[in-house]
Amino acid sequence: MMQAYHELEARKKRSSALNNAMGILQWDQQTMMPDGAAPARASVLAELSVMLHDMETGSALSDLIAQAESEADQLDHWQRANLREIRHQFVHANAVPAALVEKLVLAQSASEMTWRTARASNDFKSLAPKLETLFALKREEADVKAAALGVTPYEALLDQFDPGRREAQVDAIFADLEAFLPGFVRQVMDKQASQSAPVTPQGPFPIARQRELSHEVMRVFGFPFERGRLDTAHHPFSGGADGDIRITTRYDERDFMKSLMAVIHETGHALYEDGRPAQWRGQPVGNSRGMTLHESQSLLLEMQAARSEEFIRFILPTIQRLLGGAGAAWEVENILRLYRRVEPGLVRVFADEVTYPLHVILRYRLEKAILSGELSVNELPLAWNDLMEQLVGIRPVDDTDGVMQDVHWPEGIFGYFPTYSLGALAAAQMFTAAQRDDSDILPGLGRGDVTPLFGWLDRHVRSQGCLYMPDELIEKATGSALGTAAFKASVQARYLD
Amino acid sequence: MMQAYHELEARKKRSSALNNAMGILQWDQQTMMPDGAAPARASVLAELSVMLHDMETGSALSDLIAQAESEADQLDHWQRANLREIRHQFVHANAVPAALVEKLVLAQSASEMTWRTARASNDFKSLAPKLETLFALKREEADVKAAALGVTPYEALLDQFDPGRREAQVDAIFADLEAFLPGFVRQVMDKQASQSAPVTPQGPFPIARQRELSHEVMRVFGFPFERGRLDTAHHPFSGGADGDIRITTRYDERDFMKSLMAVIHETGHALYEDGRPAQWRGQPVGNSRGMTLHESQSLLLEMQAARSEEFIRFILPTIQRLLGGAGAAWEVENILRLYRRVEPGLVRVFADEVTYPLHVILRYRLEKAILSGELSVNELPLAWNDLMEQLVGIRPVDDTDGVMQDVHWPEGIFGYFPTYSLGALAAAQMFTAAQRDDSDILPGLGRGDVTPLFGWLDRHVRSQGCLYMPDELIEKATGSALGTAAFKASVQARYLD
Repeated sequence: MMQAYHELEARKKRSSALNNAMGILQWDQQTMMPDGAAPARASVLAELSVMLHDMETGSALSDLIAQAESEADQLDHWQRANLREIRHQFVHANAVPAALVEKLVLAQSASEMTWRTARASNDFKSLAPKLETLFALKREEADVKAAALGVTPYEALLDQFDPGRREAQVDAIFADLEAFLPGFVRQVMDKQASQSAPVTPQGPFPIARQRELSHEVMRVFGFPFERGRLDTAHHPFSGGADGDIRITTRYDERDFMKSLMAVIHETGHALYEDGRPAQWRGQPVGNSRGMTLHESQSLLLEMQAARSEEFIRFILPTIQRLLGGAGAAWEVENILRLYRRVEPGLVRVFADEVTYPLHVILRYRLEKAILSGELSVNELPLAWNDLMEQLVGIRPVDDTDGVMQDVHWPEGIFGYFPTYSLGALAAAQMFTAAQRDDSDILPGLGRGDVTPLFGWLDRHVRSQGCLYMPDELIEKATGSALGTAAFKASVQARYLD
Repeated sequence: MMQAYHELEARKKRSSALNNAMGILQWDQQTMMPDGAAPARASVLAELSVMLHDMETGSALSDLIAQAESEADQLDHWQRANLREIRHQFVHANAVPAALVEKLVLAQSASEMTWRTARASNDFKSLAPKLETLFALKREEADVKAAALGVTPYEALLDQFDPGRREAQVDAIFADLEAFLPGFVRQVMDKQASQSAPVTPQGPFPIARQRELSHEVMRVFGFPFERGRLDTAHHPFSGGADGDIRITTRYDERDFMKSLMAVIHETGHALYEDGRPAQWRGQPVGNSRGMTLHESQSLLLEMQAARSEEFIRFILPTIQRLLGGAGAAWEVENILRLYRRVEPGLVRVFADEVTYPLHVILRYRLEKAILSGELSVNELPLAWNDLMEQLVGIRPVDDTDGVMQDVHWPEGIFGYFPTYSLGALAAAQMFTAAQRDDSDILPGLGRGDVTPLFGWLDRHVRSQGCLYMPDELIEKATGSALGTAAFKASVQARYLD
């Protein structure tokens, strides 16, 4: 009885070991690996990807899943959700033939390698042929997955990162934001112009001290250093393996806030991973609930909790003690205004939270057009610049800080960008709901006590794994469907009131 | 044509990816991993081991190998050797049932964990039951492998580390050393007693400076930092993956020589890995040629090249510049006498090269007796102490620095110890042959130029992968079978003349 289901759990445990191994290899690649080992590492990761694909596909597995589904009435709540996730992973993996997996891995690796130099030398022409090849393969992947899932090709890719998400919903949410944001940005800019400019604390801020500050802030947020690390990498990320959470940052001696906010952001991701239900480790239902939820956890810490006046009042003395700051630049009011400065710019990763969704909407529209074939690779730079001017109000002067600024497309990542902004909306919605449920959350942050906030997050998000679909989880946690209201109210309160 | 052979190469490429992944995970475990991640990592490595075992066994693979062997006349020299190695790996893996593999992994992990605390608290009793379980499984493994290979059970385990090695040969070599060494040690001790004692350079030697010295010496030896690293770990080791060689050391502020010699030793291992034939990476024939050969490469650098008067004259100014040493302790003559000091002790890893083989002979005899069942776990501490007194002339006062000093047996590693001393013999024999073939080797070391020595090692050892069996390789390289003559002559020249 339930033998098929238990066999599936055993198989998932094994593929989870491979995923964990790849997690550490990917972390190592960004932090420790000597540069010359890159080709060897790429080849190892490609082999492991194909191996994983083999383990996740095939008729024996298909039969096992069908068998387990026919006995689903014997499963409990969590097991049934696990089986649903196993089926979901199978449909995604099995839709793609092994030969296409291998071609994709190679094309992604070739295109990403070219992107590095092409971006540095503003040479989109050299990148274009690699993108042509890669995008053709992505269309193929999207088509076979769309057929298997019964959704549109774009949704099939989006579904990998945010299961169940549909274009119509994203279109509606983004239309709402697009109607709201440009006017709101002008209002904030007008308000800023009417005030004296905030003063930027003057460095240099030694890296060793910034590192100490990172550790101190991570301790405030309860980062479990006995099963995690902080290191330096070109780009901040959160990675590692089950029970071994590793985050990175990069330091700028002139500006301590960049790294500090990156560390808090990545800590949010890491704590989500760390808080997943322990008894379901290694099973799909024990995973984090996709990228919208993941971004909600990082942005809730970075944009909501850590930028609250309460938290800034609490942490500022620590920052001053470690970095030695004093004077007008270090007044709470000034720091708050620095943190909450809106300024339209060309580059997504440097964007403030108010203009950020406009960068995402631009990418969402273009990547759908690329995938449908409406937009060719050669038309892409011009389309980018036009849309950037239209949405953000500035026109890129080159492709380096234009169409080539992100690694996502050269790495073949489509359908990921929307989750940044959907995550920001979810973060605002959750932070609002959490404060309504527990009035001690903001006062807690004011005394450096994250217990009230984390109690709420543990109960409603971290401990839930993949028991529910993303939108179900959000609605259960906050009492309403994912929408723009809380985000709008939150930026209204912080930027205009 | 040759389809079976090419399919085997494709399979080996895949299992090599898994091996490379495990290599990085093991390195990470010793250098970077937070302590609390140990159980999760052990479980990932156990799953990957079982996965690898699955890939290396089974009737489909057996058929492929037989098919390729029947077409062996179409293969070239290297392909034939590759096929021989593929067969050899298959026989080893296929002899052991998957259930036994899993039991061994778990018993090793349990026993090694207990050993850490048992050793620290001199509590052999707590370790004994874990060893009983593990040794019973090792006997089972040795028996099934012996049957598959047509050798004795001990040889079957030895064969994993040093293919083709036979007990009769090891017995003869060790009997020779046992007849020679005790008398030789007395002679050296008498000579030392007749001289004034060498002066030890006084520290502290700051770790940052020692690290700089390590890097400097590694550069002299041509360590390729673009595809390798040096880090700190509890025990020095060489690891990593193909094209990504990583060594470790540990620093003692009072004694810079310990770390310096460990770094040179591990550099020898790493350069052997790095110098393997590039076109055979990922295939068995492209591997290093077992542990006797590996030790020959580390000991040749550490014991022969780096302790030559020529090299010490060359490197001493660098050491003094970095560590700030001056005075009588820093005279070349004094340093040479420090490097060449013989002193019988209880602990293998601190032993000088002259008494070292006695520690190995002790372990060789005891591990054969354990495996045959002649010696029970409970009798082991007493047997250890008696034999230590007989061979080395000192009796341990506890089990911490007696039978529990090494991790090998608690990790289920039998048949490995002999390769330390066989490697030392091979190192002496190669260094002698190399000097005979190229008279510029010692003068080269005197000017910090390793090109002559490494030219010889590249030609005769590093580039040869597993083209030949270990003893064939040694005989081709040095002109004679592996023996004790060069080692004896070398210690005679350095310690008595």
